[in-house]
Amino acid sequence: MISRVLSADLPGHIGEHVTIAGWLHRRRDLKSVTFLVIRDRSGLAQVVVPPGAACGYPEETVLQVEGEVTANAQAPGGAEITAPAITALSGPAAPPPFDLYRPTLTATLPTILDHAPTTLRHPLLRAGLEVSAASVAGFRAALDGLGFTEIFTPKIVESATESGAHVFGLDYFGRPAYLAQSPQFYKQAMVGVFERVYEVGPVFRAEPSDTVRHLAQYTSLDAEFGFIGDHFDVMAVCREAVAGMVTAVSERRRSQMEVLGATVPVVPEEIPHVHFTDAMALISRATGRDVTGEPDLAPAHERWLCEWSVREHGSELLFVTGYPLASKPFYTYPDPGRPGHTNGFDLLMRGTEIVTGGQRLHRHEDYIAALAARGEPTRPYEGYLQVFEHGMPPHGGFAIGLERWTALLTGVPNVRQVAMFPRDLHRISP
Amino acid sequence: MISRVLSADLPGHIGEHVTIAGWLHRRRDLKSVTFLVIRDRSGLAQVVVPPGAACGYPEETVLQVEGEVTANAQAPGGAEITAPAITALSGPAAPPPFDLYRPTLTATLPTILDHAPTTLRHPLLRAGLEVSAASVAGFRAALDGLGFTEIFTPKIVESATESGAHVFGLDYFGRPAYLAQSPQFYKQAMVGVFERVYEVGPVFRAEPSDTVRHLAQYTSLDAEFGFIGDHFDVMAVCREAVAGMVTAVSERRRSQMEVLGATVPVVPEEIPHVHFTDAMALISRATGRDVTGEPDLAPAHERWLCEWSVREHGSELLFVTGYPLASKPFYTYPDPGRPGHTNGFDLLMRGTEIVTGGQRLHRHEDYIAALAARGEPTRPYEGYLQVFEHGMPPHGGFAIGLERWTALLTGVPNVRQVAMFPRDLHRISP
Repeated sequence: MISRVLSADLPGHIGEHVTIAGWLHRRRDLKSVTFLVIRDRSGLAQVVVPPGAACGYPEETVLQVEGEVTANAQAPGGAEITAPAITALSGPAAPPPFDLYRPTLTATLPTILDHAPTTLRHPLLRAGLEVSAASVAGFRAALDGLGFTEIFTPKIVESATESGAHVFGLDYFGRPAYLAQSPQFYKQAMVGVFERVYEVGPVFRAEPSDTVRHLAQYTSLDAEFGFIGDHFDVMAVCREAVAGMVTAVSERRRSQMEVLGATVPVVPEEIPHVHFTDAMALISRATGRDVTGEPDLAPAHERWLCEWSVREHGSELLFVTGYPLASKPFYTYPDPGRPGHTNGFDLLMRGTEIVTGGQRLHRHEDYIAALAARGEPTRPYEGYLQVFEHGMPPHGGFAIGLERWTALLTGVPNVRQVAMFPRDLHRISP
Repeated sequence: MISRVLSADLPGHIGEHVTIAGWLHRRRDLKSVTFLVIRDRSGLAQVVVPPGAACGYPEETVLQVEGEVTANAQAPGGAEITAPAITALSGPAAPPPFDLYRPTLTATLPTILDHAPTTLRHPLLRAGLEVSAASVAGFRAALDGLGFTEIFTPKIVESATESGAHVFGLDYFGRPAYLAQSPQFYKQAMVGVFERVYEVGPVFRAEPSDTVRHLAQYTSLDAEFGFIGDHFDVMAVCREAVAGMVTAVSERRRSQMEVLGATVPVVPEEIPHVHFTDAMALISRATGRDVTGEPDLAPAHERWLCEWSVREHGSELLFVTGYPLASKPFYTYPDPGRPGHTNGFDLLMRGTEIVTGGQRLHRHEDYIAALAARGEPTRPYEGYLQVFEHGMPPHGGFAIGLERWTALLTGVPNVRQVAMFPRDLHRISP
């Protein structure tokens, strides 16, 4: 391994002779001196090149720099490298399509995405991905602590069923097949094996929606578990997962959140909740427009409810429970207290739904009845329904879209800015 | 949440009145008494039902049992439930296709896989999946500790390139696309962003191979990182990853390994290594058949080398380095000391290759030359090659197939036995 000190550790080596290595983030040629800023995985380091020394490398060239660590209050971290000997580890870099050292990338989003391998090196885009990775680690840690087992389910499936979402078709050794739009059926089956399971993996939606919230592939954080009383138990575990994600970001990604000008929400011990019917009544009363007959929340309703939650409960997070049957998939458990409603819920944050979940049906005959009530045949669901014939406990679960979560957490307006190489209606490269 | 005690915790509650819940694993009707064995995520619990009490539930019905915890040296864990009050949480289960309480499932593999949602409940199959999940956790922990960042890359890609493996074609909003056969190009690009990255995710191979080692979808544990000297640095990190996996299994899955009759390998501080050329010479000398001209190891060679490694080095793990150019992908770094060979390596364990890796090319002009030398056009690789124009450090990485790893570790002969719902040439359900 190239023996080196990371830039963030330089202040601990003042007076020593060390080697650093990284990308030439910026070169500033002044009259009497040249400053090089080297970027490595830990941050930035300043190198002072005396007059006359050759250092004509273009930005983004990978350099190894040997020199003395000298205290300088003006340098990042209070230390810089002086009297450097510089070697290039890559060839001289072609000029990158943007100045990566500027505080923001001013190009249009399509242009930024076309050059993703390079633009993701920009501290702002990189910070979003780092927040994303920490969120996943926090999700796993929270659920590991609750006795969950990680699962890896098939992404190629035989039938294009479930929730009516658009799916991608595939040639599977000469037979038609589809890309999984969610691990829903498999995670329920695995409750029968492990009781408590989660999966972090790609899901695929062939939605022809061209919005700031939709991707054709996104990372889904899925959890499912048994032996619940009702959906409030699912919401309690969901709260732990979200709190774990927020804690991981707070603890490990403080500087990234600062760079992004973003703050994490406070996750209350108990996240406030409102029943769909009561939510609609509140909105109707406040806006003077009767929405009590509508089957689902419109985006404007979600925004209104989040503002109400901050005002009323001091919480940026709000559960909405009891969604109508018509707006939730057939496997959702009905609300025993309010006919036509379900034990399905959404978690709203900062104006948008970020989690969807609920209690599921667990008796075979209930599935048969639910499909019949929707006029759907049972045949395409045979593989799925098999599991409920052989004993399933009351169970439920939830799913969090990672890119949407990260966008809301970091305050970026478009999920494409926090996806590594986004896929949408128009984009399949790089 | 249903308030209950897990079966593994019963010995700590002797004399108390508790509730347990789980699947009816086995019912044994004796003349004067009925024993119920309840299976939950922690293990098994015995319930003693006095004569006359009704408990006619079929096996796999989900039951909640209230009763007194009584010491009994014959019961699992030394405690059982007496004077029970029993409630069914599911409907009465249909008879499962197999007796899940028997030590082994005697049906053929296709039959077992057809009923995977139920058969995975069997302690043997379940144990394999638990070993698998712990291996992944160990992989992540090892790499997290070395400053790696987790990435999530696209599984739908524009071009069917890379290593010539067979790929699945897809209709992507009316355009042809393919399922990613590996995250290779993306993980290299992300070395330019984070220096050190890993991904745990599905990869897809449309290989028409119907063997005990091949799946059409498998879980790939991928790592890639920069600022290496050569492939020995990659092997050193690979050693840490494998050691992390073995440690996690040893610490958290002891009972599962016992059930499977399997043991973990000792991972030496430094795993022994042999150059491909020397390996071929050894095999030729030992077998009397000259194989020194062959471009790759045959399965029999891998087995021979593993036996040799145990004999010679006392190690079940062996690195083979310096594979010929012809047997490694074009992005593999050539061995500067031996023309025609590369800085590519494999890690063998118990007779089979379980890791493949190496140093990669990092200069743009080397990629152009390597493609030209193979008579391949650069056009399909344009998106990939872009990253090397903008400064990439010397780097390398490796990939571990999770199912193959788990099969070797647990001693099961077929990767399908340690995949959750395997996909192969003939199987796409359940």
